[in-house]
Amino acid sequence: MDMNENEIAWAEMAVTSTILRRAWEMELGQIGLTVPQALVLNIVAGSGEPITPMKLSKLMHREPHTISALLSRMEAQGLVKKERNLQRGNWVRVSLTKKGKEAYKRQLTARKVRNITACFSKQELESLNKMNRKLRAKGIEMLREMMPSPYGEPLW
Amino acid sequence: MDMNENEIAWAEMAVTSTILRRAWEMELGQIGLTVPQALVLNIVAGSGEPITPMKLSKLMHREPHTISALLSRMEAQGLVKKERNLQRGNWVRVSLTKKGKEAYKRQLTARKVRNITACFSKQELESLNKMNRKLRAKGIEMLREMMPSPYGEPLW
Repeated sequence: MDMNENEIAWAEMAVTSTILRRAWEMELGQIGLTVPQALVLNIVAGSGEPITPMKLSKLMHREPHTISALLSRMEAQGLVKKERNLQRGNWVRVSLTKKGKEAYKRQLTARKVRNITACFSKQELESLNKMNRKLRAKGIEMLREMMPSPYGEPLW
Repeated sequence: MDMNENEIAWAEMAVTSTILRRAWEMELGQIGLTVPQALVLNIVAGSGEPITPMKLSKLMHREPHTISALLSRMEAQGLVKKERNLQRGNWVRVSLTKKGKEAYKRQLTARKVRNITACFSKQELESLNKMNRKLRAKGIEMLREMMPSPYGEPLW
């Protein structure tokens, strides 16, 4: 394999990201949640009002059908409820049940992995944030090139 | 939500990582591959000799049953073949078929996302690599604490 320095850095990032994701999955698993579930709980709790599945799909950068399946499983587990308005066809809003709110609070206490950068200096943390912003902008640019206007109007 | 600076950095990393992964998925999707498939093709091609599913599981930081399902799908698609030794019970080695070798070469040409750090200065790239190594070491430490000796003897 003939990799240049960028491709080597990419491989390092990919491995690191897999390891961090796995650690996050395990920490959340200890309190009975998955990463996508915790993300939904955070977004819905943070939005302050019921939210459409489409908006969740955009905020989580995942396809609508993936989010739809995730929400159905979470509804079956009693974590979220979907309100429907029969007069308005597709109108669906997602909110947290009592059990969902408890799960949201429970996952707030799982802070070990989310504080992994505590081993960084203030300067390193700033530098990390700056690079993340650059990578994110570039990643969105690449996504747009490959898939113009992904799901309806572009939110990113 | 009451997040400290580390938890904000974590949220940024998580979003960035999701976007980059999605861009990588899309680029590989254009040549008919998924990210896990491309990883398997790279590891098997790079190893120079047939490899055990357990070793793949460790190198990809994924559970053995996940790798087993992935390999079965790839075998059905004609990308890999499994050699079995009936005298030695569980003895299985994975190698690439002709079609798998072609797919391996094809994914080498998908270089756009893997070169995303081309927008970084040399200094930034060094700094990124350094931080990735730190995060990776810390992530492995956390994984070990949560799950001592994950799959048999520890490779990481």
